[in-house]
Amino acid sequence: MLCLKVPTDAAWARQALRDVDAVLVDHAHCEMKAASNALSLATRHLADAEIVRAMTDLAREEIEHFQQVLALLVERGVPLGPPPVDAYAAALRRVAAAPGPRGETEALVDRLLVAALIEARSCERFKLLAEASTSQPEHQALGSLWTGLLAAEARHYRTFVAMAERVAGGDRGVVGARLERLAVAEGLIVRDLARAEGPSRATIHG
Amino acid sequence: MLCLKVPTDAAWARQALRDVDAVLVDHAHCEMKAASNALSLATRHLADAEIVRAMTDLAREEIEHFQQVLALLVERGVPLGPPPVDAYAAALRRVAAAPGPRGETEALVDRLLVAALIEARSCERFKLLAEASTSQPEHQALGSLWTGLLAAEARHYRTFVAMAERVAGGDRGVVGARLERLAVAEGLIVRDLARAEGPSRATIHG
Repeated sequence: MLCLKVPTDAAWARQALRDVDAVLVDHAHCEMKAASNALSLATRHLADAEIVRAMTDLAREEIEHFQQVLALLVERGVPLGPPPVDAYAAALRRVAAAPGPRGETEALVDRLLVAALIEARSCERFKLLAEASTSQPEHQALGSLWTGLLAAEARHYRTFVAMAERVAGGDRGVVGARLERLAVAEGLIVRDLARAEGPSRATIHG
Repeated sequence: MLCLKVPTDAAWARQALRDVDAVLVDHAHCEMKAASNALSLATRHLADAEIVRAMTDLAREEIEHFQQVLALLVERGVPLGPPPVDAYAAALRRVAAAPGPRGETEALVDRLLVAALIEARSCERFKLLAEASTSQPEHQALGSLWTGLLAAEARHYRTFVAMAERVAGGDRGVVGARLERLAVAEGLIVRDLARAEGPSRATIHG
């Protein structure tokens, strides 16, 4: 699935669907964080109109997805509180920010690739959730939601990689090598989180 | 115009249109700041689905407006750099944050009312720009843009005031009195900025 190195155990989705409300709450938080991150990337790089256009398109779309999930939560009477600490994203950002001689370009490339990996993992998990939902009549509407969103996540992954290549002056080799390293780290993070907290965590990441 | 206490000098728009590119750059920054602010308000108050819905609707719309202005800037070959210090918004936030016994509710009411006032001032300025554009053939396309947006700004103003009333438990009296005080302060800020920097500043606020 895209560039992921460690596939999620197929049992995860079946377990997660036992607490659909928790999955939806986590999903809503993921969409909101993705929207904020895209808008923040646009704001920090206003000089490049192509990045700004791509990031603001993405932010609008993530807000729409957030609103779709929010509507479901309201329908189900589930309140949305502040997001818990996101151990997955925090660990991934720590890897990207590891010490080393780096300039602003490398830092931005890393930030875009971290966002790409988060989208790739969302895409994988939405696919598993959609598949697991089809066999459970009470979750078929949610299955359609996740099926609809996973294509968007795959597209967002490609947008982030394309923007990283643009920032790197079109050097696909450098970006590909860095993505490979970050993807290996992402796989280890997912594996460690699953071990530490059990495979049944009802979260989109980690 | 809405709740504003100090009207902008009608000469301002004619002066500002002498540097249309600068007005558009400032306008783009205003839309982006409005989008970020709305998304931040949504993120910090996730427990209230009505506020979250209103703020995310608003963020989506502000991003669309930003993209409209960005497209114009790209067409005109004008680059968009990082925003300069926003003396107007900073002064307004300082007033709202003035020391006093306040809880989280009052702070949120103030934040919403400050946003309402910024929208009201945008609305007034867009109206002046639209009016001044009609007599200048080379600016008629921009006039249509501003005419289109000023209705949205007025609507956003009402949304922010309505959300402030909601947060204040429906107490319109308290919110009205606070809005009145902040509006007086906003008028003084605009007057002082115009005096300090001249009435010809090509900015939407201040």
